[in-house]
Amino acid sequence: MLAEVEAEVDLRHHGDAEVRGGGGLVDLAVNVRAGTPPAWLKQCVAESLDGLAAYPDGRAARAAVAARHGVPPERVLLTAGAAEAFVLLARALRVRRPVVVHPQFTEPEAALRDAGHRVRRVLLRAEDGFRLDPGAVPADADLVVVGNPTNPTSVLHPAADLVGLARPGRILVVDEAFMDAVPGEREALAGRDDVPGLVVLRSLTKTWGLAGLRIGYVLAAPEIVAELARAQPLWPVSSPALAAAEACVGPRALAEAGHVAHRVAAERGHLVAGLGEVPGVTVAGPAEGPFVLVRVEGAQGVRERLRERGFAVRRGDTFPGLGPEWIRVAVRDRPTTDAFLTALRASLPPAP
Amino acid sequence: MLAEVEAEVDLRHHGDAEVRGGGGLVDLAVNVRAGTPPAWLKQCVAESLDGLAAYPDGRAARAAVAARHGVPPERVLLTAGAAEAFVLLARALRVRRPVVVHPQFTEPEAALRDAGHRVRRVLLRAEDGFRLDPGAVPADADLVVVGNPTNPTSVLHPAADLVGLARPGRILVVDEAFMDAVPGEREALAGRDDVPGLVVLRSLTKTWGLAGLRIGYVLAAPEIVAELARAQPLWPVSSPALAAAEACVGPRALAEAGHVAHRVAAERGHLVAGLGEVPGVTVAGPAEGPFVLVRVEGAQGVRERLRERGFAVRRGDTFPGLGPEWIRVAVRDRPTTDAFLTALRASLPPAP
Repeated sequence: MLAEVEAEVDLRHHGDAEVRGGGGLVDLAVNVRAGTPPAWLKQCVAESLDGLAAYPDGRAARAAVAARHGVPPERVLLTAGAAEAFVLLARALRVRRPVVVHPQFTEPEAALRDAGHRVRRVLLRAEDGFRLDPGAVPADADLVVVGNPTNPTSVLHPAADLVGLARPGRILVVDEAFMDAVPGEREALAGRDDVPGLVVLRSLTKTWGLAGLRIGYVLAAPEIVAELARAQPLWPVSSPALAAAEACVGPRALAEAGHVAHRVAAERGHLVAGLGEVPGVTVAGPAEGPFVLVRVEGAQGVRERLRERGFAVRRGDTFPGLGPEWIRVAVRDRPTTDAFLTALRASLPPAP
Repeated sequence: MLAEVEAEVDLRHHGDAEVRGGGGLVDLAVNVRAGTPPAWLKQCVAESLDGLAAYPDGRAARAAVAARHGVPPERVLLTAGAAEAFVLLARALRVRRPVVVHPQFTEPEAALRDAGHRVRRVLLRAEDGFRLDPGAVPADADLVVVGNPTNPTSVLHPAADLVGLARPGRILVVDEAFMDAVPGEREALAGRDDVPGLVVLRSLTKTWGLAGLRIGYVLAAPEIVAELARAQPLWPVSSPALAAAEACVGPRALAEAGHVAHRVAAERGHLVAGLGEVPGVTVAGPAEGPFVLVRVEGAQGVRERLRERGFAVRRGDTFPGLGPEWIRVAVRDRPTTDAFLTALRASLPPAP
């Protein structure tokens, strides 16, 4: 389904706003892994503070990211979080007909609109399981943005379907911010150099608990990287963030991320099974990310009652293509999930 | 003197490149205060690492900066270093006829060019002591960028001359990155709300040794701040940088900065007096910043011989309006300056 509409929802609403001021709430609204950053990573960031007086030098971190994906450094751009990458894509490239596949993280569209673009939306449908319909993407789109696995639907699109969206003269942006939470990074396009116009975004924020540090990266052809880099400020990434990036792509971190991905999958299975037993609740999917999208009647009231019971979940209605009956719930450990499920049952509207 | 020219020098050359790989060199090329950040500030940044998993929340830092300058928070924009502010000014505002007053920090012009602007230059002249000539600024300029005190000339322009450049329909950018090194912040425009189109940039990098952290801010009318903010990525400043900003505008930091400014003035006096006794050397000025601009015949050879003697100074020839006979030297403590002066005498070309 293709739609060209004005932004009628607050694209700049993010989960962190649902936790602010909610001291003591169990945070199921923000997709940052609980208990992070790990001590070894915090230590590594702390050690970088000794060099704060010097201007950042991103070369070592860039080389480390390149090595992790088996590409030359010219294909890597370090950014101040994925959020900076969205602004660069919106402002630095000569695109005229951008298309965003929704529901997805709203920041790419917000950045495109703020840069003056008219944005067309492809809306994936709940009745199709939010699966990608490559035929719905307009042939004349010269920028296509899609998430994989997608926030907030948690759907993992087949890599081949995404590759099928590539065209000469088109930039294909695949936001893989949550791909490291998928065991084996199945369906990942990071590191591929045979897809014309491919731009892959990665985040270190979610798995490693570095949301406060602002670090992410872009993988793309050298000429695209160079074009984006020209729109970056000088010294775009801080020294502590560079130290963290280097550490997070090393062998130790990759092994830990692999374990975490399997644990998240098991914990998600527990959450999805539990939700399946709650009357009137359905889960989009199959879910493959560290969060699940849940349909429940009277979601706004449910969210408010969950807050009274100590749980913050993410509203779904600010995502284009989702109505007021959706909420997004982060995957947490079993005790937290069990407590949440109990609270959810108690928060449902009375049966009609 | 007005010039419209292509960038024939490397505007992206910065002092940090002259120190890289120069292990053991005494760094007189980078204008960051030696021995920084102080222990209390490093401690404050270290404590912020406990909150890294949360997305940055800039409200407290913004309020603190506003209070420090006696303006409402709506007049403050926190940025990832002054470098981000230059990119925002170049890309977010609807300006068509930008003018940069040189010699000055080259990043504003580089950012304007990268954003597709044609840039006209006003070149201040050595024989005028690099003093501002308001009449040289074209009447039709809708963006004027000037530094105060100016890097690399160290000249402090009278506030009244700068205010005289303001016009309806013109953005007047005054880069005060080094103003906190001027005792009493004489001639500062930060905090003024009676100058139409005024945009003041401030840095916390130089006095506080936070170059690696990327933090600075813009003071301007609320509508200009809002326009620049729309071009920023989400969460533009990291949590450690926000913590540092808040600390650096508190009473303790302001008192310390005041002491530092007086000490810098005394140490600069010692450096300038010493340079005055070196044959064939002249100092631009009067110098009012934490660095001085020095004219010396055969500067390139002098720089190379200084490196052999262990001192890195900043080349001057990448600043528009300066020829190959200029170098910039950071103000340091007396023992360092004395050692430098000895090395400089030994590095001069043989008398003809």
